[in-house]
Amino acid sequence: MSGFVWLVGAGPGDPELLTRKAERVLGEAELVLYDALVAPAVLDLAPRAQRFCVGKRAGRPSVRQETIHRLMIGAARRGRRVVRLKCGDPFVLGRGGEEALALTAAGVDFEVVPGITSAVAAPALAGIPVTHRGLASSFAVVSGHAEAAYRPVLASLAPQAATVVVLMGLASRGSIAALLVGRGWAQSTPAAIVLGAGTDASHTWTGSLADLGSAPLPESDAPGTLVIGAVVSLAAALGGEASAVPPALASGQAGS
Amino acid sequence: MSGFVWLVGAGPGDPELLTRKAERVLGEAELVLYDALVAPAVLDLAPRAQRFCVGKRAGRPSVRQETIHRLMIGAARRGRRVVRLKCGDPFVLGRGGEEALALTAAGVDFEVVPGITSAVAAPALAGIPVTHRGLASSFAVVSGHAEAAYRPVLASLAPQAATVVVLMGLASRGSIAALLVGRGWAQSTPAAIVLGAGTDASHTWTGSLADLGSAPLPESDAPGTLVIGAVVSLAAALGGEASAVPPALASGQAGS
Repeated sequence: MSGFVWLVGAGPGDPELLTRKAERVLGEAELVLYDALVAPAVLDLAPRAQRFCVGKRAGRPSVRQETIHRLMIGAARRGRRVVRLKCGDPFVLGRGGEEALALTAAGVDFEVVPGITSAVAAPALAGIPVTHRGLASSFAVVSGHAEAAYRPVLASLAPQAATVVVLMGLASRGSIAALLVGRGWAQSTPAAIVLGAGTDASHTWTGSLADLGSAPLPESDAPGTLVIGAVVSLAAALGGEASAVPPALASGQAGS
Repeated sequence: MSGFVWLVGAGPGDPELLTRKAERVLGEAELVLYDALVAPAVLDLAPRAQRFCVGKRAGRPSVRQETIHRLMIGAARRGRRVVRLKCGDPFVLGRGGEEALALTAAGVDFEVVPGITSAVAAPALAGIPVTHRGLASSFAVVSGHAEAAYRPVLASLAPQAATVVVLMGLASRGSIAALLVGRGWAQSTPAAIVLGAGTDASHTWTGSLADLGSAPLPESDAPGTLVIGAVVSLAAALGGEASAVPPALASGQAGS
């Protein structure tokens, strides 16, 4: 009897932005190992499963990566159907590749279920298209976690050549802005910080590259996404639709 | 009586990679304006809706962008609930920003529903994480449609600084490879072409940057995604899992 592991992306936060496939495999799961920021309403989709948070939570260290591998592999070898549920997309800065390699090395069957990455959805939910005709036909996604991760891209990319999206970059936003200005990006380049996209606690700041480092932000432990480039200027026109609510369906008209 | 428009991403092709929200609003839609590559199984989720293909189909020109705007706005003003269903994500090279601006200018309420972009999912479904610890912590997404679109990024980005993903780049893959080699990228840099990701007709070629331009491809009108960078080397270990099939649930064990 052999188990199975799905490496599943939970998307940017809103449980409705989960994929239909993620919903199905959660319904089949016997064990769910989830990141800390996954919404409770998503976990409710796995009613038959044991559920363990393996992500970092305030005041507590995260579970070691090797421990996550061991839990997945051990459960699969006992014949369990396991969902490893990760924020965003499993293969965008999520160590999903390492988990997939560990499963491969252990001979455990698995499948990757892509999710919506915050790199695209966080800007979108704030009214910012990462590409837009005449403004940007390219975008670069970098990790702001460490300078060694973002410097090679940001120090070489020609100014204004692409929209820059920084994940995990709240703490380094001042350094990143300085690096880009030093590379020749205009101080006036539009910039945004999107906090908690896809959740009720979302908050967006927009301004310029010159102000990115000192932008006032609310107290929050929500994840933040930086967006830098001319496309940010569209938020003024498009940023309000998050609150647009469609009219209620006429009685008796709604589907299942 | 006012209508409503949802700008919805249909994801990379597999109907199960649609979001739960896309499924819900399709069920509520009265009019669906869809891109040519949207799967029939996705359109079946909109049983009450009139459905019109507004994308380019073999041998026929695509509907003009202005016509799409006019159809959306006109229907919404007649009180209709409209879904504009686009491949991938509406804001990644999909002119979704233009459609959102047109709706804003017309005073039509709308909402953007992000979808899974092929820029991340096409590589993932071929076993290629766009980021991977030790190999790449950044990725750049460019349009291969025209040299003016990809040159600013590819001619400036430091060699191997990020995974490069090219959408709509099948025809320009030779020029793109030459541009990168001219910029100093190693000829041996791993490269892949993913055709029809998320569909039954998917096909992946892997090789090196030196061979990218001359890689033999099957006759296909499926969309293609180029991936260039060290992460492509992981496809050898991770590329087989697309065929991994989980064991059937024991009888009576399955959920709804």
